[in-house]
Amino acid sequence: MPAPLDLASALEALRRQRPLVHNITNYVAMNSSANLLLAMGASPAMLHAREEVVEFVGLADVLSINLGTPSPAWAEAMLQAAKAAQVQGKPWVLDPVAVGATAYRRQLAATLLDASPTLIRANPSEILALDGMANPGRGVDATDSTANATQAAIRLARHHACLVAVTGEYDLVTDGQRHVLVHGGHELMPTVTTLGCGLSAVAGAFIAASPRDTFNACVAALTSFAVAGSQAAHDARGPASFQVAFIDALYQLTPEQLAAQANVEVTNAL
Amino acid sequence: MPAPLDLASALEALRRQRPLVHNITNYVAMNSSANLLLAMGASPAMLHAREEVVEFVGLADVLSINLGTPSPAWAEAMLQAAKAAQVQGKPWVLDPVAVGATAYRRQLAATLLDASPTLIRANPSEILALDGMANPGRGVDATDSTANATQAAIRLARHHACLVAVTGEYDLVTDGQRHVLVHGGHELMPTVTTLGCGLSAVAGAFIAASPRDTFNACVAALTSFAVAGSQAAHDARGPASFQVAFIDALYQLTPEQLAAQANVEVTNAL
Amino acid sequence: MPAPLDLASALEALRRQRPLVHNITNYVAMNSSANLLLAMGASPAMLHAREEVVEFVGLADVLSINLGTPSPAWAEAMLQAAKAAQVQGKPWVLDPVAVGATAYRRQLAATLLDASPTLIRANPSEILALDGMANPGRGVDATDSTANATQAAIRLARHHACLVAVTGEYDLVTDGQRHVLVHGGHELMPTVTTLGCGLSAVAGAFIAASPRDTFNACVAALTSFAVAGSQAAHDARGPASFQVAFIDALYQLTPEQLAAQANVEVTNAL
Repeated sequence: MPAPLDLASALEALRRQRPLVHNITNYVAMNSSANLLLAMGASPAMLHAREEVVEFVGLADVLSINLGTPSPAWAEAMLQAAKAAQVQGKPWVLDPVAVGATAYRRQLAATLLDASPTLIRANPSEILALDGMANPGRGVDATDSTANATQAAIRLARHHACLVAVTGEYDLVTDGQRHVLVHGGHELMPTVTTLGCGLSAVAGAFIAASPRDTFNACVAALTSFAVAGSQAAHDARGPASFQVAFIDALYQLTPEQLAAQANVEVTNAL
Repeated sequence: MPAPLDLASALEALRRQRPLVHNITNYVAMNSSANLLLAMGASPAMLHAREEVVEFVGLADVLSINLGTPSPAWAEAMLQAAKAAQVQGKPWVLDPVAVGATAYRRQLAATLLDASPTLIRANPSEILALDGMANPGRGVDATDSTANATQAAIRLARHHACLVAVTGEYDLVTDGQRHVLVHGGHELMPTVTTLGCGLSAVAGAFIAASPRDTFNACVAALTSFAVAGSQAAHDARGPASFQVAFIDALYQLTPEQLAAQANVEVTNAL
Repeated sequence: MPAPLDLASALEALRRQRPLVHNITNYVAMNSSANLLLAMGASPAMLHAREEVVEFVGLADVLSINLGTPSPAWAEAMLQAAKAAQVQGKPWVLDPVAVGATAYRRQLAATLLDASPTLIRANPSEILALDGMANPGRGVDATDSTANATQAAIRLARHHACLVAVTGEYDLVTDGQRHVLVHGGHELMPTVTTLGCGLSAVAGAFIAASPRDTFNACVAALTSFAVAGSQAAHDARGPASFQVAFIDALYQLTPEQLAAQANVEVTNAL
C-alpha cells in the first residue's frame, strides 16, 4: 500500500535542500520560471549549449525540459541532456508545450520520451496530442478539459512508466495506478503567461527534494500552486497584480498552510 | 466614404474571437508581449524555428514580426513566415526595432517589406529610417517626434499600401489617405521596456479580429494602450508599479470605457 | 591622492547623459536588465548578432557582456564586441555568470578577459573561480562570501588592471589599490532573479557617464542598488512585490538621497 500524501514534508524537504534545477526552457518562460523557483525555495539555472549541458546535468539535482520555443541546436541539447539525466539516474521533467501544433514538435517530443522522463507536465490538449502519437486514431478535441484528458494521461503514465500531471480547471496527477485530483487555483492563472512552464520546473524541484516519494512530491508542487493561486486572487485587480501576489504567496507558503489548505482527492479509479 | 471609427466594436470583436497571434519577436519582449496579449484578450504563441513557422502561420490568425534581436536563422524564419502570411492572405505586422542603427537591420527590413505587411508599427526614428531607405536624401533627426515623422509615415503607407502606426508623445495611424491622431498615455510608458513591441502584437490581434476594418482596429489598439496608460498612471510610483497597473487596466478595459475615454482626431489632411 | 567619493555627481551624470548601454546578456536577464537600466536613467539596447555587434559598439557608450546563457554564435559575438570596445576605447563590463560551473564557461571567460574589461562584476563564487583559473591551486569554497573572495578580487583587479565589484552580503569595489565596502540592500534581493546581471549593466551605465572617475561611478552603481534595496524592503511581502518596489525606488532615487543614505567604507587595506 502506497504511503499517504504528506504535502507538508515535501515542501519542508524542498526548502531544506534547495535543489539546483537545470532548465532548458523556452524564452518566454525563462525569467518567470527562475523567479517561481526562487520564490518556492529552489535554485534555478538556465543553460542550453550543447557544449555544457551534459556537464551541468551532473551538477544539477533535476533537469526540466520545455518545448516552448524549440530550434535544432536546442533540440540536440535537450536530447543530450535528457539522455545524460537518464544515464546518471537524475530525475527529469518534460513539458511538451503545444506538442500538437506542428510536426516538428511531435517528432521532438517522441524522441525525448525515449529518454524516460520522470514526469510529464502538460495541459489537457498536450496530453491528448502526446497520447494521440501512440494512439493515432484519437483526435484532439477543441474543447479539451482535464476530464477529457484523464484516460490519455493514465495511458501515458503506464506506457512511459512515469508520472503525468495535467493542469486545467482542476489538476490530475497519476502514475498509472494511483490518481490524485487537485482543486484550487483561480481563473486569473491562465491570464499570466508561462505559469504552467514554471510549474513543471517547480515540480522537478519537489521531486529532486523527495526522491523516495516522487508521486507525493508532484502532488505537493501542484497543490502549492493551487493554494497560492487561491490566495493571490484575494487582492488581484488583474493578471499583473495577480502574478505579483502569486509569487509572494509561494514565497510565504508554509508547510502547515499547504497541508491545511490543500484540496485533493485520492482515488484508484477514474 | 470610409466608416466612422467604432473602437468599442473592435475591442468586442477581439474579446469574442480571442485571435491566435504568432509572434516572432525579440527576446526582451517575449514575456511582456505574451502578458499584454493575454490581458487584452488574445492568445499568444511565440515560436521561431524555420522547421515550423510556416506550418504555424497556417494555424494562427495573425503574424507579428519584430526585429529587436535578429540573427541569421531568425531572419530566415521571419522571411519564410512573412511570405507564408502573404500567400495565405493572413494579416501580418512589422515592428522594425532600431532599423536605423545597423546595415544588417536595414537589409532585413527591406526584404521583409517586400512581403507586404498589413501594418508597420514603429517609433518616429524608425519611421524616418524606413522612409530614408526609399528616400536616401533624408537624414534621421536626433530629436525625432511624431510630428517630424508624419510625412514619412504617410509616404510609407502609400508606397507599401499598408497601415502605418507611429507612437510617440502622441500617436498617428495612417493608411496614406486617412489619418488619426491618438492622444493619451503617460510619460512613464517609455520607462517600461518593450511596451511598443507589445503594442505591435496587440494591434495584430485587433486587426485579426476585425478584418473588414483594419484601420479602425489599429486605432482601437493604440487607443486601448493610451486609455490604459492614462488610467495606470493614477496609482503608479514608478515604472514597475506602472507596468503592473497598465496590464491590469488593459484586462479591465471595457468597450464602453474605450469609446468614452478615447481622445482621437480624424483628419484627411496633415 | 585619489578623489574622494562623490556618489551624487555620478548619479547626476548618468541621468543627464542617459548613456546607451549595449547588452549582450543572457535570456533570463534581458527584460529585467532593460527595465533596471530605464529606471536608473540609462538607455538599454540588447543585440547579439555577429552581423551587427561591432557596428553597434560604435554607437553605444558602453558594452555589457554577460555569460549567463552562452552558445557558440553568441560567444563569437561577445568576443568581437569586446575587442571592438577595446580597440575603440569604449568601456565594457564582464559578468562571468557561473564561470566555475563548466569548462565551456571558463574558456569563454578566459578569452574575454584578454580584451581587457573595464569592470568585472560577479558574486564571490565567480570571483574565486576566475581567480582560480590564474591560480589553479585555489579551490572554490562551497560557502563563498564576499570576505572569502576579497583577496581574489584584489588579485584579479591588479592582474587585469580593471575594476572588480563583488556583490554578496556586503559588496566590495576594488581597483587593486583602493577598496570600498558597500553595505545595505536586503535579504530579498537574491530571491529576485538576475538583479546581479542588471547591476552589471547599470554599473556600465554609471561608468560611461563618468569616464574620468570610473571607480567612483562603480561605487555609485552598487550603492544605488543597496539604497534602493533597503528602501524597497519596507513595503515588500515577498520577492515579486520587492522587485516592483525596487525598480520604482531606483527610478525615484535622487542624488541627494544616494549621498545621504550611502553606507560605504573606504580603505586602502583589506
